[in-house]
Amino acid sequence: MTEQWGISELVFTNPTTVEFSQGTQRLTIWSFWDGDGREIVRFMPPTQGVWSWVADNNNEFGELIVGPPSPGNHGPVRVHNTFHFAYADGTPYRQMGTTCYVWNHQSAALQAQTLETLANAPFNKIRFCVFPKHYIYNENEPELYPFEKLGEAKWDFTRFNPAFFAKLEEQIVALGKLGIEADVILLHPYDDGRWGFDCMPAEADDRYLKYVTTRLAAFRNVWFSLANEYDFMKEKTEADWDRFIGIVKKNDPYDHLTSIHNGTVLWNHTDPRLSHASIQNGSAVEDAGRAVLYRDVYRKPIVFDEVIYEGDIERRWGRLTGEEMVNRFWEGAVAGTYVGHGETFLHHDDVLWWSKGGVLHGKSPARLAFLRDVLQHAPELEPIDKWHNQRTGGQPGQFYLVYLSSAAPSEWTFALPKPGLEEGVTFTAEVLDTWNRTITPVAGTFMTKKLDNYTFVDATDRKIPLPGLPWQAIRLRRVAA
Amino acid sequence: MTEQWGISELVFTNPTTVEFSQGTQRLTIWSFWDGDGREIVRFMPPTQGVWSWVADNNNEFGELIVGPPSPGNHGPVRVHNTFHFAYADGTPYRQMGTTCYVWNHQSAALQAQTLETLANAPFNKIRFCVFPKHYIYNENEPELYPFEKLGEAKWDFTRFNPAFFAKLEEQIVALGKLGIEADVILLHPYDDGRWGFDCMPAEADDRYLKYVTTRLAAFRNVWFSLANEYDFMKEKTEADWDRFIGIVKKNDPYDHLTSIHNGTVLWNHTDPRLSHASIQNGSAVEDAGRAVLYRDVYRKPIVFDEVIYEGDIERRWGRLTGEEMVNRFWEGAVAGTYVGHGETFLHHDDVLWWSKGGVLHGKSPARLAFLRDVLQHAPELEPIDKWHNQRTGGQPGQFYLVYLSSAAPSEWTFALPKPGLEEGVTFTAEVLDTWNRTITPVAGTFMTKKLDNYTFVDATDRKIPLPGLPWQAIRLRRVAA
Repeated sequence: MTEQWGISELVFTNPTTVEFSQGTQRLTIWSFWDGDGREIVRFMPPTQGVWSWVADNNNEFGELIVGPPSPGNHGPVRVHNTFHFAYADGTPYRQMGTTCYVWNHQSAALQAQTLETLANAPFNKIRFCVFPKHYIYNENEPELYPFEKLGEAKWDFTRFNPAFFAKLEEQIVALGKLGIEADVILLHPYDDGRWGFDCMPAEADDRYLKYVTTRLAAFRNVWFSLANEYDFMKEKTEADWDRFIGIVKKNDPYDHLTSIHNGTVLWNHTDPRLSHASIQNGSAVEDAGRAVLYRDVYRKPIVFDEVIYEGDIERRWGRLTGEEMVNRFWEGAVAGTYVGHGETFLHHDDVLWWSKGGVLHGKSPARLAFLRDVLQHAPELEPIDKWHNQRTGGQPGQFYLVYLSSAAPSEWTFALPKPGLEEGVTFTAEVLDTWNRTITPVAGTFMTKKLDNYTFVDATDRKIPLPGLPWQAIRLRRVAA
Repeated sequence: MTEQWGISELVFTNPTTVEFSQGTQRLTIWSFWDGDGREIVRFMPPTQGVWSWVADNNNEFGELIVGPPSPGNHGPVRVHNTFHFAYADGTPYRQMGTTCYVWNHQSAALQAQTLETLANAPFNKIRFCVFPKHYIYNENEPELYPFEKLGEAKWDFTRFNPAFFAKLEEQIVALGKLGIEADVILLHPYDDGRWGFDCMPAEADDRYLKYVTTRLAAFRNVWFSLANEYDFMKEKTEADWDRFIGIVKKNDPYDHLTSIHNGTVLWNHTDPRLSHASIQNGSAVEDAGRAVLYRDVYRKPIVFDEVIYEGDIERRWGRLTGEEMVNRFWEGAVAGTYVGHGETFLHHDDVLWWSKGGVLHGKSPARLAFLRDVLQHAPELEPIDKWHNQRTGGQPGQFYLVYLSSAAPSEWTFALPKPGLEEGVTFTAEVLDTWNRTITPVAGTFMTKKLDNYTFVDATDRKIPLPGLPWQAIRLRRVAA
């Protein structure tokens, strides 16, 4: 018996399409070639109970009994309440990503170390590439290649290397065991003629995208990222990307989260085939008032997947302080958006987390663990008064996080925007030092009083004392009547 | 003989469609009913020379000889270089709008005063509504109605009042003589059951939109704004607005600039039928780093048509200082976007510029005149290094405006982002006090020297002394080699 959102495989000897059905549900799944004359159909049952299947080519058919998910299996992550995410079983998912572009192409020892680091890190998503990467600090050759090699940078694009993809799947499973979503980057520009995977002919692109999507779609923790910095792939046009998105969606029967990540030219994320906006723009989360603008525009979850990296390299995209990295996560959070981490500290063997994984050196991860804990115990954060008060995220009338960023005042006057409030609502308050990771309850409670047409204050004009340090936040919770 | 972008009219006795042609150009134009058994076909010749026309219903036909435009007639405004505007004859158009929602429904004397004010104001666009407005400070009844009146708030929506539309056209012509574009707001929510023009039946909406578009399309200075705060019209769905946009585009053979303006929910301005994004969001131009984000998303001109208003009323959208109004224009300008003005000072007769026109009381218009002069003598402003330097707009390597906003430093170190630069490029500099309206040339020149991978500075590390006041800008012009 397989479990809901687990994987069940059928093996054929020829290319086969199988239709799985239960009641009015119908899923058509293509087989993929796995070597040794094996054509595999992989099925991730979206619901429990009996599923019937029938193959198209030889009248094979059968049934599958699907049981409940095992502990820790919450199903794939889905969009929830327009701007947020939740697992299929309803468990909230507060995206906190990191990026190790080609951790999967490093030595077995380094991969093991990366997984060990991730097991103790706050991240519940990791972005990484299918193809190897050629770039600064990234000169090493991968062990495996996706296609049969014909010669130096020459490939038979019609012949996939099943071992390459099997290894990728092992890595996805290993991440899944850690509760980490695998945001798989299908194409990227960092090749520079070394392997040529960034400039394959159109039919090779299309065949590859169909193959990789078909293979990976049954893994519940997979997200599809069409590309990293798609616009830096100068051989591809916007029409190509439009076609690529179509291929991925067509071959993914489960409608996994799907996005496309920009260099400097944003994709049109209003595209209904894309589940969320995957954005590179660090400046947007320097200020919640910037981050919030993308929500209005795209009406879907906003994930700032690159906000530049904590580190000490010369490039300006790789020398963010830990304080500013954490600040960007908080600015993004109170704007009702999500942020991704990356780290680029110089290393004697060029093992920079951002690309190869290994261990974390920065100051931000411990503080991001603190933030993640805050978010896990919070409702989905929405901007409360989006164009007039960008410090305050929460749920109107119920829960607020007021983030003071780099300001270091000695007190905060209790004041909340009107939505969801009336006179006489009682709140408790805590002061969160987001850098020093302390939570200090404020004695007593606060009761709302209308100040003007836009703002409620405390009936006794209470203020909350603050330590005069930057990176403070106030957490307010309504007291049940 | 008519002039290019002038108006030529044909009068029929029955509804008629006329096809105008010149070479491969074909324009199909519907007649509109103008009372007294007159069906008028209005034609704005887009090119000079001989145009032929043929009516659909009675084999009438003829020719029209179109001469050159008269002085001051530059044709309709079009999108230029993706993010900007220019007149059809190529003359640059630097949008500087204002809003007087129903100046056109006030007394003749007040209308005349408004036009007089506009003649001496810096604005080259005005937004106003076809329908009358019921709102705070707006209690007066209009003189004319768009439909035949049947009783209190009861109309025969099938019978237009030609006098109403003729008056609207006179106003558009009067604005045109002042060099002002008429951004005509076709629908708006400020009715509250008084006339019911915000909740007409669908067929009345559609008939009205066809009629008003057909009538007004031949005026070269018309822009169509589908609505003000479209999302505040609770009876209309997004599907309605989608249909409305289609009706306007179908009945406008000249493809006038067309937009739709939001309350709190932004329309999807990626819609290719819309020429530009007409946005209400004052917070977006508090900071050029916010304003610039919309450019990436929409890839068309961004016009912040409401950034709240300079004034002294109690509502928070109507009590901006003059300084902050001017600041928002500058922040928008250096971000490569455009801003709109409005004014809400209390008045003994409730004549607030924002709604009724009259005279201007604020401090911003004089400073906006200064800005307009700066922009008229500048190339189109583009952000030079959009995510890392939001103070600097211009054309890479050629022209820069560095806007310092509320900061009041005593000097500015010459430093420019890399794009378009190399070593040894010479610039002249001026200090612009955007509030006190002074332009102070800086003696000598500056020559570029590479500082690092991102920045060029002056070869002798020259700084520019500043007066220690807020609202300063630096203007840099490349010296021809």
